[in-house]
Amino acid sequence: MASYSAEKDAYLKRLRRVEGQIRGLQRMIEEDKYCIDILTQVSAATKALQAFSLELLDEHLAGCVVDAARAGGKEAEVKVREASNAIARLVKS
Amino acid sequence: MASYSAEKDAYLKRLRRVEGQIRGLQRMIEEDKYCIDILTQVSAATKALQAFSLELLDEHLAGCVVDAARAGGKEAEVKVREASNAIARLVKS
Amino acid sequence: MASYSAEKDAYLKRLRRVEGQIRGLQRMIEEDKYCIDILTQVSAATKALQAFSLELLDEHLAGCVVDAARAGGKEAEVKVREASNAIARLVKS
Amino acid sequence: MASYSAEKDAYLKRLRRVEGQIRGLQRMIEEDKYCIDILTQVSAATKALQAFSLELLDEHLAGCVVDAARAGGKEAEVKVREASNAIARLVKS
Repeated sequence: MASYSAEKDAYLKRLRRVEGQIRGLQRMIEEDKYCIDILTQVSAATKALQAFSLELLDEHLAGCVVDAARAGGKEAEVKVREASNAIARLVKS
Repeated sequence: MASYSAEKDAYLKRLRRVEGQIRGLQRMIEEDKYCIDILTQVSAATKALQAFSLELLDEHLAGCVVDAARAGGKEAEVKVREASNAIARLVKS
Repeated sequence: MASYSAEKDAYLKRLRRVEGQIRGLQRMIEEDKYCIDILTQVSAATKALQAFSLELLDEHLAGCVVDAARAGGKEAEVKVREASNAIARLVKS
Repeated sequence: MASYSAEKDAYLKRLRRVEGQIRGLQRMIEEDKYCIDILTQVSAATKALQAFSLELLDEHLAGCVVDAARAGGKEAEVKVREASNAIARLVKS
């Protein structure tokens, strides 16, 4: 079971809001809205996605990574490596 | 007329692809997919939005900002200030 | 003459402050300071560098790019392309 | 003992290189170098700081966070919260 299960509804709600923002951007392009206003809207969607990932990552560390560490063995190392790679992708994106 | 009009179809296509990525993320949450795979997908959507803004901004500079500079007067200053603020939002998001 | 000449002293002062932050980081490592405190300090230095680039870029757009646009000819295109590439590097770094 | 002790020399070397980059930036400003070249150099320094933090964070997760999880008790929660906050600062900076 994924460690974010308790937050599933909240996550889905957030993603649906981002989907709405992306559809709003399509409407802005169709209606030839001003570039700067479109860019402001893109920044808002990007920030929403970023906040979503930071929360998901926090739960992953508190759940999967801590559990793997407690279980002992090599699994903790694998989980930390995986989390570090995901963090690097977030920081660079 | 917005300065990106020539690229309208290409922009819409890109945004529809991002919309598909966001819907894919909702499916991943619904199916309890692994956090790290979800995070990878979020990074991909963020990168796509970022590339979209950089292109829109490039056209805005080449179009509106250059035109305002050529027209003379205070308008160029206003456009540069506006563009700088948009760039700052992009860099920080 | 570079377009930031009027701000030279202010820029040098900011960079010297960042240099001080980087030296502070070296001291923290030497004294085995706690990772999280070091990371906080790195974020502060990164933010200072980012603010510095955004200001430099703003002056560049208001100076070189606007001047090139006014001078007419192909130069404006070259300057916009160059600025867009610099913005992309900033957004991705 | 900080969890990065084994890497201390490597970290110091990297930070000294960043310090050199910041001093190089000051020279560029003093010599009225072209804005775009200065911005390229700032991006390089920012990327170096970012890579440094990602490595430090990876060691922190593999060291302090995993150890706290193994020790049991509330400490793991505190460490994860702290790490998540540091990651958020990195992602936003």
